[in-house]
Amino acid sequence: MALKAIRAGSRNETGIAAVLGLMRERFGDRFQTGEAIRAQHAHTTTYIPAQLPDGVVFPDSAAEVEAIVTIASEHGVPLIAFGTGSSLEGHINAPHGGISVDMSRMDRVLEVNAGDFDCTVQPGITREALNVYLRDTGLFFPIDPGANASIGGMASTRASGTNAVRYGTMKDNVLAVTAVTAGGKEIRTAHRAKKSSAGYDLTRLFVGAEGTLGILTSVTLRLQGIPETIAGGVCSFPSVGDACNTVILTIQSGIPVARIELLDALQMQASNAYSGLSLPEAPTLFVEFHGSAESVALQSKQFGEIAAEFGSSEFRWTANTEERNTLWKARHNAYWAQKNLRPGLAIISTDVCVPISRLADCVEATHEDIAAHGLVAPIVGHAGDGNFHVGLLFDDKDAADITKAEAFVARLNGRALAMDGTCTGEHGIGQGKMPFLEAELGDALDLMRQVKHALDPGNIFNPGKIFAM
Amino acid sequence: MALKAIRAGSRNETGIAAVLGLMRERFGDRFQTGEAIRAQHAHTTTYIPAQLPDGVVFPDSAAEVEAIVTIASEHGVPLIAFGTGSSLEGHINAPHGGISVDMSRMDRVLEVNAGDFDCTVQPGITREALNVYLRDTGLFFPIDPGANASIGGMASTRASGTNAVRYGTMKDNVLAVTAVTAGGKEIRTAHRAKKSSAGYDLTRLFVGAEGTLGILTSVTLRLQGIPETIAGGVCSFPSVGDACNTVILTIQSGIPVARIELLDALQMQASNAYSGLSLPEAPTLFVEFHGSAESVALQSKQFGEIAAEFGSSEFRWTANTEERNTLWKARHNAYWAQKNLRPGLAIISTDVCVPISRLADCVEATHEDIAAHGLVAPIVGHAGDGNFHVGLLFDDKDAADITKAEAFVARLNGRALAMDGTCTGEHGIGQGKMPFLEAELGDALDLMRQVKHALDPGNIFNPGKIFAM
Repeated sequence: MALKAIRAGSRNETGIAAVLGLMRERFGDRFQTGEAIRAQHAHTTTYIPAQLPDGVVFPDSAAEVEAIVTIASEHGVPLIAFGTGSSLEGHINAPHGGISVDMSRMDRVLEVNAGDFDCTVQPGITREALNVYLRDTGLFFPIDPGANASIGGMASTRASGTNAVRYGTMKDNVLAVTAVTAGGKEIRTAHRAKKSSAGYDLTRLFVGAEGTLGILTSVTLRLQGIPETIAGGVCSFPSVGDACNTVILTIQSGIPVARIELLDALQMQASNAYSGLSLPEAPTLFVEFHGSAESVALQSKQFGEIAAEFGSSEFRWTANTEERNTLWKARHNAYWAQKNLRPGLAIISTDVCVPISRLADCVEATHEDIAAHGLVAPIVGHAGDGNFHVGLLFDDKDAADITKAEAFVARLNGRALAMDGTCTGEHGIGQGKMPFLEAELGDALDLMRQVKHALDPGNIFNPGKIFAM
Repeated sequence: MALKAIRAGSRNETGIAAVLGLMRERFGDRFQTGEAIRAQHAHTTTYIPAQLPDGVVFPDSAAEVEAIVTIASEHGVPLIAFGTGSSLEGHINAPHGGISVDMSRMDRVLEVNAGDFDCTVQPGITREALNVYLRDTGLFFPIDPGANASIGGMASTRASGTNAVRYGTMKDNVLAVTAVTAGGKEIRTAHRAKKSSAGYDLTRLFVGAEGTLGILTSVTLRLQGIPETIAGGVCSFPSVGDACNTVILTIQSGIPVARIELLDALQMQASNAYSGLSLPEAPTLFVEFHGSAESVALQSKQFGEIAAEFGSSEFRWTANTEERNTLWKARHNAYWAQKNLRPGLAIISTDVCVPISRLADCVEATHEDIAAHGLVAPIVGHAGDGNFHVGLLFDDKDAADITKAEAFVARLNGRALAMDGTCTGEHGIGQGKMPFLEAELGDALDLMRQVKHALDPGNIFNPGKIFAM
């Protein structure tokens, strides 16, 4: 459904031609129209076919973003904000053409308030660069979606990742943003107070808006103290159900686990091969605990007892940094390990999230579905949040394989919705999940359309994403 | 400023007359127009003069709310959703007349999912009634704004209160809502997954919207496990600065305090008199810790050491329920204790919130301001969040006293904004804080107006609140 439904939209050719001229004049070398650079700005690891922008501009300041928005507004030309291009659902495609606004030059840390556990950054900084910058402050920014994404992109897709189970998602960790909106002016959604009841929650409106309501020019983030001790470990299970039930009981017991990741047997096989590990090729949990030495030891012990109840291999944990890094690097490379299972095939990375009590049901039913249809589809997941990704391998040049893949995705999303879940825990809607959002929220989509139309009447900000207008 | 600026708006007399007739016909005894009941629905503990609705309707179901919205929409008549009336800024006033929609009959718990730590309730249930209902599940709903407010009202003002420092605000604890919007249809903003990136965050848009975007018909809430041990205590300080600095260092040290409340010397005097306590009449902190017996003991010890550094009286803590209840009952009755200082005077309860590092600066400067202007104005605060309330006593029949009070409020809000804070940590804007919201967010208010206009083009939902249209 999703893949077939994505079509190029109408193009405002005269507007685009005018804007190309104006951008060249205003930005010189910081405006590029070469095909290679345009292709780079429309396609990275997604299964969705690329739709190239007509040009790429690299602003240096909020004032320049205001100028870009003013030009684009006057001529009715789309603007697609671009961070690092690690989104998965066609978020950065240009179905109606237009200009990719590459934020990579706006990558400075504007302010760190260590005493308030917050900082303000430009949207182009990556999460790894931010954490390098913060290293000497004793603080860190916890959200880790795997990819070294930009903070602006993470805010825009409401990203989360491995340690959201402990620290929340971007929704919980963005205190305020500034953004240039349709009028071409920068607005600020909030200040630095930890909480506020000052009118509509505009901050949360921009978080997850996928660049459809304006272009972020700064993001104020909550930071966390670097834990005194970080310990982690790994254990494998007789069945994926046992692994899931261990997660469910761990969460229900209130153990404040910092990461609890599920990798199924096929994923372990893929990761062993790709990352040079030699772990059992059985359903596995990677876990991590943050806290004082005593607290981490206690959490590990409690977790080990629960895992043992479900027949796990012996749970060994370590505070050794190198051993932990090997494990988490393998986890972060799960996508490339999947790719490596069948080189040349494309991957749809699904993203359902269900209430934690339904995790085992949903994963087990999905495993049965994969087996029944003879699919190659390893599973990894942020299991503590009830969120898991099936890495469905398919031949994107074969119509029958596309149909088969899309039917699986539709069944999976339907299964998650029937369990009171969502089609996307963290990837966002983009182009790929538009039909599923409709199924998930029904008439509430009209409200989203009304908000979009009100805030972006010319439909210039990332048109053709989230919902059809 | 605020008090003087509040004027009755224009009334759609023919529409109101038609709606009165239709409501009577449709709801019989569940539609009331007597003056006493209308007055009850426009005024409780606020300093803002009452503006009565023309009638009060008591719906029993979402379908009835749909009928009410449809009738009001057709005739262009305002609807003001009403929970328990404990809001403080004129939220439930009817400046343009219209119908108060009293949700008290929609007070059922619809569903408890203990395994997922969530429940879904109708908006009219109060937080105390919900916690009584939950008692046998081992779970509780943590948000405690003091008053026994309704869940719908708490969601609508983005309420928080004493233990937000540990458990967050309504923003963090509402998973989804259903609401009847301008079209007269009920929509659902999300399902029960712990996280989702499914389009715009409509849930957070309704949380804090003060009933201006629709009428809530259900709220899905996150719940918490009842802590194994709850311990609390009290200690006093040589100065309010010492008390604030103890709070700052406690938060910066990452002690997961569940409540940390500041009461200044005048408030202690008021509370001793009203609640029959005999605590020192000096700046005081009430604190509470949740966790295992060991963790609570450790937190108490760490807190006691910090307090001692700032010259506190000996910090004694207890897990005895009765002693704790006496303390927190006195805290909850702080408003009535303030009233009792000067019977007959009105109270403006201010609500600034600043980044935690600025708490001492802001409270000390405010104390100097109070002294310099000879005001009677005790301070209580959710200090761990940087949020405090000045209970400014003034004669609301004396123009000079009103001017003096409003000048103080303006200075206080200006001071908080200059420290990167907000004019409202948890009370909301209503009518009273409209000018301060303008100062706080400037052009961002235009976005709020655009959202309001898009979602409620007839301006029927609680008009005249948050911003002028």
